Amino acid sequence: MKYCELSREELLVLKDETEKRYIEFKRKNLVLDMSRGKPNKEQLDLTMDMLDCMKIDSYDTITGIDSRNYGCFEGIPEARKIMGDLLGVDSNNVIIGGASSLNLMFDYVTTAMLKGVCGHEPWSKQGKVKFLCPVPGYDRHFAICEYLGIEMINIPMLDNGPDVELITELVKDSSVKGMFCVPKYSNPEGKVFSDKVVKALAELKPAAPDFRIIWDNAYCVHHLGEHDDELLNIIEYCAQVGNPDIVIEVTSTSKISFPGSGISCIAASDNNIKDILSRMKIQTICNNNINQLRHVKYFGSAQGIREHMNKHAAILRPRFDIVLEMLENELAELGIAKWGNPKGGYFISLDVMDGCAKRVCQLSREAGVVLTNAGATFPYGIDPNDRNIRIAPSFPSVEDLRLASELLCISVKLAVLEKMLTK
Amino acid sequence: MKYCELSREELLVLKDETEKRYIEFKRKNLVLDMSRGKPNKEQLDLTMDMLDCMKIDSYDTITGIDSRNYGCFEGIPEARKIMGDLLGVDSNNVIIGGASSLNLMFDYVTTAMLKGVCGHEPWSKQGKVKFLCPVPGYDRHFAICEYLGIEMINIPMLDNGPDVELITELVKDSSVKGMFCVPKYSNPEGKVFSDKVVKALAELKPAAPDFRIIWDNAYCVHHLGEHDDELLNIIEYCAQVGNPDIVIEVTSTSKISFPGSGISCIAASDNNIKDILSRMKIQTICNNNINQLRHVKYFGSAQGIREHMNKHAAILRPRFDIVLEMLENELAELGIAKWGNPKGGYFISLDVMDGCAKRVCQLSREAGVVLTNAGATFPYGIDPNDRNIRIAPSFPSVEDLRLASELLCISVKLAVLEKMLTK
Repeated sequence: MKYCELSREELLVLKDETEKRYIEFKRKNLVLDMSRGKPNKEQLDLTMDMLDCMKIDSYDTITGIDSRNYGCFEGIPEARKIMGDLLGVDSNNVIIGGASSLNLMFDYVTTAMLKGVCGHEPWSKQGKVKFLCPVPGYDRHFAICEYLGIEMINIPMLDNGPDVELITELVKDSSVKGMFCVPKYSNPEGKVFSDKVVKALAELKPAAPDFRIIWDNAYCVHHLGEHDDELLNIIEYCAQVGNPDIVIEVTSTSKISFPGSGISCIAASDNNIKDILSRMKIQTICNNNINQLRHVKYFGSAQGIREHMNKHAAILRPRFDIVLEMLENELAELGIAKWGNPKGGYFISLDVMDGCAKRVCQLSREAGVVLTNAGATFPYGIDPNDRNIRIAPSFPSVEDLRLASELLCISVKLAVLEKMLTK
Repeated sequence: MKYCELSREELLVLKDETEKRYIEFKRKNLVLDMSRGKPNKEQLDLTMDMLDCMKIDSYDTITGIDSRNYGCFEGIPEARKIMGDLLGVDSNNVIIGGASSLNLMFDYVTTAMLKGVCGHEPWSKQGKVKFLCPVPGYDRHFAICEYLGIEMINIPMLDNGPDVELITELVKDSSVKGMFCVPKYSNPEGKVFSDKVVKALAELKPAAPDFRIIWDNAYCVHHLGEHDDELLNIIEYCAQVGNPDIVIEVTSTSKISFPGSGISCIAASDNNIKDILSRMKIQTICNNNINQLRHVKYFGSAQGIREHMNKHAAILRPRFDIVLEMLENELAELGIAKWGNPKGGYFISLDVMDGCAKRVCQLSREAGVVLTNAGATFPYGIDPNDRNIRIAPSFPSVEDLRLASELLCISVKLAVLEKMLTK
């Protein structure tokens, strides 16, 4: 029965019941965290053999460079190959970074601000700088923009990706310099950009010649089901349509091997790679070549990584199902919330009745379950409708997750009932 | 017999003899590299057990955080402790970075340019920015300044460190925002700043409140003799004299464990640490915690690192001696070159007759031995006297080093003789 069809009296009864359940939960003194997309211990255990796999005769790369020493500042060739294969990009167009693709993105945008992109005037000297931000989106992308004083413009996410018609219109403004996005298993909705959307983005003709799409392919092989979805290869397509320089792609093995101790990479056109290397050669001598070789030895190939991801899926799928079943059982019939059924990635995106998301998070937190802050999925932490909540089911144990998602549902009901009854 | 005391005829005879020796060397078809301070294979073999030392029961840090997962973005507590102990700094004032202290310095200066230091106006918005550069110095420091458009001012290195009287005078200019230096076993001269110099630097009262000394303590424990030299603890002294924020110290284990695959750190006052973290929290989620734990497990303590450095010294000392003996035997009596006898670090600094350094490097290179480019030890690659050559004896084998340093001496003689005879 939908809440909106109930009388005030019926709602009051429901609120009373829900409050009782909520108070029972508070008594459990839970301390649970569903706020960040952190792999759980089982997942970390998957790659433990990687830490011992360096008992090998030679530490030389295939080009004869000792990986234990300085050298290969673009990354060791075999790591560039494996990551290139994973993204479908020629290894010459791939640079291996440290552990963090966030760091690669931060450095890219920082350099664009201070030194400019491919010989163009630094963004910081061109007046106001604006970025397009598909929403809901990844808080750390927004944080980079906010830190650098880049004005963010919300772009609604539709079913198959961001609203490209709106984007096409907005890039006519030459102060619009870029866009962050997570094209596959998007954060937080788990959506995969359709071929049509990828093509439209690749074919953009922005007024700013130094406009760049930061293609954060964080979940490139991170499916939850039996099969991995296909994302159109944007770098290849950009080259085909004569727009090779518009995109900068990154990914990492943070959720393949170890978060913070994996390897990251940045992939782009020849011009962009040359531009990025011109900064990197000043910034560092080389990244962690031993860790690169460790990953290559352990996974063997991009196919090895893809096969490995089935193990992650097997661990994560039941966790997602627990949350989704709880949402279904507790909320489906009430007409007060909507959520997606992601086929990959690390999150479930939950939209509750407008004006209730903050209160849901507060109630949940006060009863011992930390969710991502309401608003975090929007620029400046401001969800204009106060409706979106990002759920990260990966980290807690299965038992904890059952409790945490039940509490979440109770918090949703309670917040909504409070709202409806104070109208 | 000094060359300057010889007649033109005697010089011509010498030139003829030297040319013959040079041509003999060319026939050997050598391919040797004395250009960079790279550890050799023997040194890399010292820490191989580190790559297997992670077979342990628990990957938790002492504070119970799983080092295999995201967390501890300032570094794991035990790594902050060990690096803090190494520098004599409280672990709360130490942040662990990735593998590269160069990267920490680059990011620090970049952020100062774009965002400012501790709440001050960004350097890039304050007009011209100048840095003081002790010379000869480290080419990669100069490269950062040049890349960011920072004007560099040469400061002569005296016996006990840079000319502090000159520095004291120059910092009265508020556009002077900083200074890079390698205070212990300086690059390339191997000098150790005296207590008096360290104190004078710590007590500077620059016109710019956002002036910072970048204290690149790359060789903090990298002695070549039986004992390690003492460098006054500048962070401690700065705090004592009420000037805590003037210095930013960095170091790394690049030449302790593995170049490019070690851990780095940045140490500074509370204010500076807070300032640095405010950028780092946007830039990355965390650095490689597993690699940090690996280093802690392997070395155990700062004392463990110090003891380990004796092994490096035992491998490096004979290499330095080969070069020094060759210089002594071939050049000492000729009055055409001077060099130091470093007690630590990775280099021997050789000053040849003015106007001859480039030619020496060219001759050497043409006969198969690559030296660091002449001029590299000065800002903009310009040695005003064209006299300084940086010799890196660490990487080649003992046999190769003998050949390479003999060729170097022949090249010095030949270049000087050419110069004297064309006057």
